[in-house]
Amino acid sequence: MTDFNRHPSSYHHWQLQIDGDIAHLRMNVDPAHPFKPGYELKLNSYDLGVDMELADAVQRLRFEQPQVKVVVVGSALERAFCAGANILMLGDSTHPFKVNFCKFTNETRLSLEDASQHSGLTALCAINAACAGGGYELALACDEIHLVNDNNSAVSLPEVPLLGVLPGTGGLTRLVDKRKIRRDRADVFCTMAEGLRGKRALQWGFVDAIWPKSQFQEKVVARAKELAAKRPTKAPKGITLDPIHAKVDGGKYTWNHVQLEVDAGKRVATLTVHGPQGPQPKNGSEYEKAGCSAWALQCWRELDDALLQLRFDHEQVGLVVLRTRGDRDALLAVEKALFADRSHWLCNEILRHMARVCRRFDLMARSMYAMVDADACTAGALLELTLACDRVYALDDDKVAFAFGPLSAGLLPMSHGLTRLQNRFLAQPEHAAKLAAELPTLAAVEADEQGLVTWLLDPVDWSDDTRIAIEERVSLSPDALTGMEASLRFGGAENCDSKIFGRLSAWQNWIFTRPNATGDEGALTRYGAPESAKFDWRRT
Amino acid sequence: MTDFNRHPSSYHHWQLQIDGDIAHLRMNVDPAHPFKPGYELKLNSYDLGVDMELADAVQRLRFEQPQVKVVVVGSALERAFCAGANILMLGDSTHPFKVNFCKFTNETRLSLEDASQHSGLTALCAINAACAGGGYELALACDEIHLVNDNNSAVSLPEVPLLGVLPGTGGLTRLVDKRKIRRDRADVFCTMAEGLRGKRALQWGFVDAIWPKSQFQEKVVARAKELAAKRPTKAPKGITLDPIHAKVDGGKYTWNHVQLEVDAGKRVATLTVHGPQGPQPKNGSEYEKAGCSAWALQCWRELDDALLQLRFDHEQVGLVVLRTRGDRDALLAVEKALFADRSHWLCNEILRHMARVCRRFDLMARSMYAMVDADACTAGALLELTLACDRVYALDDDKVAFAFGPLSAGLLPMSHGLTRLQNRFLAQPEHAAKLAAELPTLAAVEADEQGLVTWLLDPVDWSDDTRIAIEERVSLSPDALTGMEASLRFGGAENCDSKIFGRLSAWQNWIFTRPNATGDEGALTRYGAPESAKFDWRRT
Repeated sequence: MTDFNRHPSSYHHWQLQIDGDIAHLRMNVDPAHPFKPGYELKLNSYDLGVDMELADAVQRLRFEQPQVKVVVVGSALERAFCAGANILMLGDSTHPFKVNFCKFTNETRLSLEDASQHSGLTALCAINAACAGGGYELALACDEIHLVNDNNSAVSLPEVPLLGVLPGTGGLTRLVDKRKIRRDRADVFCTMAEGLRGKRALQWGFVDAIWPKSQFQEKVVARAKELAAKRPTKAPKGITLDPIHAKVDGGKYTWNHVQLEVDAGKRVATLTVHGPQGPQPKNGSEYEKAGCSAWALQCWRELDDALLQLRFDHEQVGLVVLRTRGDRDALLAVEKALFADRSHWLCNEILRHMARVCRRFDLMARSMYAMVDADACTAGALLELTLACDRVYALDDDKVAFAFGPLSAGLLPMSHGLTRLQNRFLAQPEHAAKLAAELPTLAAVEADEQGLVTWLLDPVDWSDDTRIAIEERVSLSPDALTGMEASLRFGGAENCDSKIFGRLSAWQNWIFTRPNATGDEGALTRYGAPESAKFDWRRT
Repeated sequence: MTDFNRHPSSYHHWQLQIDGDIAHLRMNVDPAHPFKPGYELKLNSYDLGVDMELADAVQRLRFEQPQVKVVVVGSALERAFCAGANILMLGDSTHPFKVNFCKFTNETRLSLEDASQHSGLTALCAINAACAGGGYELALACDEIHLVNDNNSAVSLPEVPLLGVLPGTGGLTRLVDKRKIRRDRADVFCTMAEGLRGKRALQWGFVDAIWPKSQFQEKVVARAKELAAKRPTKAPKGITLDPIHAKVDGGKYTWNHVQLEVDAGKRVATLTVHGPQGPQPKNGSEYEKAGCSAWALQCWRELDDALLQLRFDHEQVGLVVLRTRGDRDALLAVEKALFADRSHWLCNEILRHMARVCRRFDLMARSMYAMVDADACTAGALLELTLACDRVYALDDDKVAFAFGPLSAGLLPMSHGLTRLQNRFLAQPEHAAKLAAELPTLAAVEADEQGLVTWLLDPVDWSDDTRIAIEERVSLSPDALTGMEASLRFGGAENCDSKIFGRLSAWQNWIFTRPNATGDEGALTRYGAPESAKFDWRRT
C-alpha cells in the first residue's frame, strides 16, 4: 500500500521553515532517495515522492500554520532551482504511472493556487539558479516569480526540444491562459532548450521581477513582507494533521469513516463513505478544539487517501461503486454549522478541502456509479459525490431521500468552475438555480422527476439490474471510457484548470504513447544517450 | 494530387434535389466506390470521398442556391440512414490519415452549423432508419433531428462499446455542450450499442421530434416548410463555383493567386498568397456578376485547396512558411467594399468563407511561420493569416507595413470565438480593442512595438536568421509540436467548436494510438472478426 503520509520532520526533499507570517519552502532533493529504486534525483529533479512532500507542505501550511501569509518557494541548492521531473524516472515508468504521476503533480500545483485564492496564502517563487521544465511549471503555479539576474539563471520549458513531450504539468496552459503571454513568445520560449534569462524573461512576462545576485535574498524577503502586509491575519495558530492510516486486509481498506473494497477479479471497487456519528463541532472555535478528528476533516482526508490508493495501487479497477451510509440529518447539521461559520479560517479550510477532494473524485479516470439504496445517506456533500458519479442508481423505496445541504449551492465547485447542479442541468439553468436556492429534501420518485437519478429501480429489479450494469461497464475498453468520461463529465464551461486536465493532459497522454517520445528511438527514451532520437516525421 | 473538387452532377454518394426554398440532401452511398480500394461502403457508411461530397454540397447550397432556406439531410436507402464512418477503412488507415480524416469531417459538420448561424440555412435531419456513430454525429450538427418512430430506427453512438474508440467527430461534445443533454443520460447512451428509439430518444433530448413511419415524409416536409417560412429570402439565384485546379510541377503547385512549393527533403513548404490584381467588384451585385472569379472568393478557395493538399498529400512537411505578395491598398479596397456591403448575401458568403479558411489555417497541425519581407502584402485578411502563424518574422525595412483592414475587427473569428487580435493580446484586451477600432497601418518598427512581430530582423541578419529558425523548427518532434501548438494557439476562451478540436480530438488521437483500439487484438482491429478484443485493463 502506497503511504501518502508525509511530515515536515521527516521530509527528504524539502525544508519548511516558518518565520512569523512568512514560510520558506526550499527544495533540497536527496538524490539518493527516489520513490522507486533505479534513478538518482539529481539537480532538484523530482518524482512522486518529492511531490507528495510538496502536497503535504501546502496542506500543512493551510491547516497547521494559518498565521503564514506568504510562502516563498525556493531552492536550498546554490546551483539549481529545480530541473523538473526526473527524466530517467519518466522513461522507466509505465504509461498508467506517467499519467497518474502527472495528474497528481497537477493537483498539487492547483492546490497552491487554491491556497492563494481561498486561504490568503500568497506564493512567491524565488528562482536562484537554473529552473527548467517542471521546475518552471511549479513557478507558474505561484503568484509571483522572482528570478536572479545573472548569466546562468534561466527559466525554461525544454520538454519539446529535448524530450519530445509537452510541459504537461500545466505549463503550456498557464503560459497563455494564466500569465496571458503572447502566443508567439510562448512558442519561441517552448522551443528554446536554454530558456530565457534576466531582462527578456521579464519583458516577455515569464517572470515578475529580476534582481542582481547580491541583492536577491534581501529583495525577495522584502517583497514577501510587503505581500504579507497585504493579507489579513487569519489566526495565530492552527491544528495538527495526524497521519491517515487504513487497516488493510487483502483488498479491503478500512479507515474510520471510509471503506474501500477492491474486487480485483471483477475489477470493481466499492467505496463506502459514512456520515458523521456522535457529537460534532458547532462552529469554528469548536473545530479548532476538535482538530483533525472532526468528521468533516477526517472523513474527507480518508476519502482523499482512498482515491489515491485506487489511482496508484489498483490500476486495473475499472469501476468504483459509491455507497453512502449514515444519518442524513446529522450530516446536514454538520454542513449547516460549517456554512454558518464559513468566514472562520478553519471552517473555510475544511470546506475548501472538501471541494478539492470532490474535484479529485471528478477527475478519477474510472467509471463511477452511485448506488442509492435504502441505507444510503444521500445528503449534503455525500449527495454531491453522488452527483459527481457517471450514473446514479436509486432504489424506489420510502427510506431513500436526496437531501441537499448548503454546500451544493457553490462551495464545492468543479474544476471548470460550475457547481455539479449547474453542470448537470446545462439545459435548465433555472432548475439548477432553484434547487440551489431551495435545497430541498426529495423522496426517490421526486428526485427522479427532478433529474437527479439515472435509473430508478424497483426493489425486485435492484440486485440484477445493478449487477448487470456493473458487469457491462467493466467489459468496455478502458481507454475509450477514459476519453468518454473526460468529455461528458465537464460540460458548458472551461477555464485554466479544466484546460490543464482536459486538453493539455489529453495531448500529453497521446504524446506519451507515441514512438517519437517513448519508442526505442524516441526522444524521451534516448535523453542523455549518445545517439539522438529518430522521428517518424509525419505530422498529425 | 488529391482532387477535392466535387460536383452534384457526378456525386457517387449523395443526391441533391432542390425544391424551391427547400433542398433535399440524401445519402446514397455507392458501396463499390470507396475513396481508396480495399473496402465496401455498406449501409451508407462513409469515408473521405463521401465527406468531400458533403462538404461540396454545403458549400454549393450557400453560393449556388441562396434561395434555399432549409436543407433536409436524409437517406435514400430504406433500411439505413447512415452507419457512420466505415470501420474497415478506419482499421486499415494510418494514424496520420485517421487524424486528418476526422479533422476534415469535423470541419464539414461545423460548416453545416456555420451555414445555419450565418447564412440563414436551417438543417433538418430526417432519420428514416438506423442512424449510428458518425451518422448520428452528422445529425447532431443539424438544427433539428426528426426520427421515425418504429421498432427498428434508433440513434446510437456505439463507438465505445463496439470499437473501443470515441464518437470523435464532435459527438460527445455536441451531446453535452450543444444539446446540453444530462451527463448521466449521455453516459448511458454512449455505452449502449443499440442506442435509443422513439419516445425515450425524444424525452432524453437525443432527437427533437418522432413521427410514425406512415407520416414521416409528410411531417418532415411540413416542418421544413415551416422552418423555411421563418427564414428571410436572401436571393433568387446564386453564382456558379467552378472547379479549383493547380498546375503541378514536381513539388510546386500553382493556382491563380496561390503557390505552394514543397521541399520534401527539408520538410518545409512555402505558401505564397497574392493579393488582388486588376479591377475587383465594388459591391454585392458586382460580385454576383463576377461570380467565382473575383479574388476574394477565388484566392481563398485556392488557399483552402492548398491547405488540404498539405494535410493529405504532404504528411511529412513540418513547417509552412507563409509569404504574402501584392498591393496592400488594392487588398484593403476589396475588403472595404465587402465590409460596406456585408449585408448582401454574396458579400456575406464570401466573408464567411474567408473566415472558415482562416480557421482551417489555424487548425493545421504544422508549424506556421510568416515571413514579412520587403515585398510582403501584410494587409487585411493576409495580415490576419500572418497573425494566425506561430511566429512572425519581419524585416526591418521601410517598405514593410502592417495594414489592418475592417475584417480583423470580428468578421474572421477563430474557432474559440475570439478575434486573432483578442487572442494575441489576452493580457491587454484594451490594446486589441484599440487596434480593432483604429485599424492602423504600421511601419515595421511600429508593428514590432505594437506586438505584432515576433522577431524584427535587420537586413543583414534576415537570410541567416530565418534559415536557422526554419531548420531548428523542423528538427523538433512532430508530435510534441502538434500538442504544443494546439495548446498555445487558442488561449483564453473555449466553446463547443474548440472543444471538439482541442479536447475531444486529443483524446481520440490518444485512443487511436492505443493497443486497446488499434493493436492486433484491439477493438477497432477486431471489429467484425470472430474473436472479441483483448484489453489491457489498466485505466489511465
